[in-house]
Amino acid sequence: MKANRMEAFSDGVLAIIITIMVLEFKVPDGHDWHALLGLGPKVLSYIFSFVYVGIYWNNHHHLLHMIRTLNGRLMWLNLILLFWLSLIPFTTAWMGESHFAPAPTALYGVILLLAAISYQLLQLAIINQHPGDSAIFKSMGRDWKVKVSPFLYLIAILTAYVSPWVSGFFYVLVAAIWVVPEKRIEHFLKGQ
Amino acid sequence: MKANRMEAFSDGVLAIIITIMVLEFKVPDGHDWHALLGLGPKVLSYIFSFVYVGIYWNNHHHLLHMIRTLNGRLMWLNLILLFWLSLIPFTTAWMGESHFAPAPTALYGVILLLAAISYQLLQLAIINQHPGDSAIFKSMGRDWKVKVSPFLYLIAILTAYVSPWVSGFFYVLVAAIWVVPEKRIEHFLKGQ
Amino acid sequence: MKANRMEAFSDGVLAIIITIMVLEFKVPDGHDWHALLGLGPKVLSYIFSFVYVGIYWNNHHHLLHMIRTLNGRLMWLNLILLFWLSLIPFTTAWMGESHFAPAPTALYGVILLLAAISYQLLQLAIINQHPGDSAIFKSMGRDWKVKVSPFLYLIAILTAYVSPWVSGFFYVLVAAIWVVPEKRIEHFLKGQ
Amino acid sequence: MKANRMEAFSDGVLAIIITIMVLEFKVPDGHDWHALLGLGPKVLSYIFSFVYVGIYWNNHHHLLHMIRTLNGRLMWLNLILLFWLSLIPFTTAWMGESHFAPAPTALYGVILLLAAISYQLLQLAIINQHPGDSAIFKSMGRDWKVKVSPFLYLIAILTAYVSPWVSGFFYVLVAAIWVVPEKRIEHFLKGQ
Repeated sequence: MKANRMEAFSDGVLAIIITIMVLEFKVPDGHDWHALLGLGPKVLSYIFSFVYVGIYWNNHHHLLHMIRTLNGRLMWLNLILLFWLSLIPFTTAWMGESHFAPAPTALYGVILLLAAISYQLLQLAIINQHPGDSAIFKSMGRDWKVKVSPFLYLIAILTAYVSPWVSGFFYVLVAAIWVVPEKRIEHFLKGQ
Repeated sequence: MKANRMEAFSDGVLAIIITIMVLEFKVPDGHDWHALLGLGPKVLSYIFSFVYVGIYWNNHHHLLHMIRTLNGRLMWLNLILLFWLSLIPFTTAWMGESHFAPAPTALYGVILLLAAISYQLLQLAIINQHPGDSAIFKSMGRDWKVKVSPFLYLIAILTAYVSPWVSGFFYVLVAAIWVVPEKRIEHFLKGQ
Repeated sequence: MKANRMEAFSDGVLAIIITIMVLEFKVPDGHDWHALLGLGPKVLSYIFSFVYVGIYWNNHHHLLHMIRTLNGRLMWLNLILLFWLSLIPFTTAWMGESHFAPAPTALYGVILLLAAISYQLLQLAIINQHPGDSAIFKSMGRDWKVKVSPFLYLIAILTAYVSPWVSGFFYVLVAAIWVVPEKRIEHFLKGQ
Repeated sequence: MKANRMEAFSDGVLAIIITIMVLEFKVPDGHDWHALLGLGPKVLSYIFSFVYVGIYWNNHHHLLHMIRTLNGRLMWLNLILLFWLSLIPFTTAWMGESHFAPAPTALYGVILLLAAISYQLLQLAIINQHPGDSAIFKSMGRDWKVKVSPFLYLIAILTAYVSPWVSGFFYVLVAAIWVVPEKRIEHFLKGQ
């Protein structure tokens, strides 16, 4: 019953994060298609973040269903994750506004990296509620995606100084490996 | 249980979309009724979008109750639908601000058209979860409204270059055919 | 099950309406208490609206529990109510910004009046789902508050041109008669 | 059933409060790391408020589970609490914008103090629903945290005129004593 409220609160925060990013699209001065041109990088930046927040919502959904006992520790780990995710609208706007300049593009990755680390800490705390459960350990503890993502974010952060295209490639890569449905967790949940 | 969270998340996003549009009504400089005159096209544009988002919320409500198994595919199709709907506050503001100039009025329809196509893809994926169920096929698969709406949007997009009144007529027409309660789906749901 | 989603959506919209009004409190230029002085009318105006939206949330809560069958008609009546309520942040900001000038203070009442009428139409449609139930009719149909409020709003609208104090008195009066808990509905619900 | 809706509404408001604070992080003019320097105090101020709203969400969660009968009185006490919390984004922005100047830093504490008093009134009203229940009285009525916090806020308010560092220390102190999980309430709930 309690985990439901944590879920509802997180859903609320994620829904607001994903939606207030649109407030960055200021109405352009002109009234023809030309006036939209300047919005290009902002829209691209928004699409990135929409997909990332979507991925977090998706995985968070799976993760919270494995909570056995909700306690203050889990609540705070969840709030720390939401804290980093709440900064995404800012980094999204800065990255778009700057046309993918090095510093904003790197900061975008730094926030995603910190969110990824927070997610892993939350996941670890939930796995620890299932001691001796090798199925959970297999399905989540050894998850290559969770382990690989931080390194890819790190590469994206560093290559932001080389070229926005290289950096962008790695952001797309992380998104791509996550959008693929995580069959293993779903299998585990069905097997329960 | 899972579909509930997708519903709650979608409701959250739709509730935010429908409400943040009001943030576009900047407080006018004057303090008499005259000062409100400039708001006319914005309010009209807001009413349009309020009705459209209301229609989506209404139908989405019916649609999600037909989900049998929630999977990653449905989640992403739903997120794609929410993505297009999340752009409505921007196009609403631009259309209102420009007093229904051709480009903004056409873009308004483009976003609605993309949302309609996404809705159909989501609907198709849900119908596919009920193979051999001719009742579903009849109630949704052959729905003339779903088939007619994209064409009406297309006409509204093209006629935006002729006159905002003609274009507006087609936007009103789409809204009108949807506000009429979809007896067939309701009948089907009761018959289950 | 369906009415729950309408409740959740309405709650979401009301929660956003009540919260985005705060976005109107722009950070003042100065950093001392003096800088806050200009905020006075805005804060007063916010308190009014917070109480009104709180009242609507409270009564809406009671009302929706009496729905027997959710249909398109109720959904649209509810959306129309939410539409008028969604304009409260705008009228609140204008009234505060103008230091309770006649036109904004009157418009504030016009929107509240339209919301009150929409609420009555929704209530009527729900009462009609309980034909021959004299208890409902007594508890709601003959409710003096519902009947008196529109007249008080009307007086508040007209007296806005006399003095903001007189008009404000009637806004406070409406709020006061509603904040008193509606024992009758609660009694009826307990008696079921 | 009814308390659920009060919970959902409060969660919605808290989720929006915690998220709209980010809208204060305006996109900086520059596109290098240097451009972020000015954001320092705003981010610090945001972290404070994120933690405080997180604490309120946490405790509110525990508190509402003890409601026996939801009535108008509890609803209004809850709305008064939400009213003070809704002002946090404004005081957070002003405190950050002013680089922790005395008046904004003191106002921050004043709002937190008023929220704390409202929380205690709500708590008291809920305790009164359990007459003769000494366990509740022990777990909540004698809670030293609840009694100590207002005094610490008061010290923080006064010391804002001495130094932002001293004042900040007391804000951190209140947060620290609350982040520690409230074992007693949890024990009580488990013992039920």
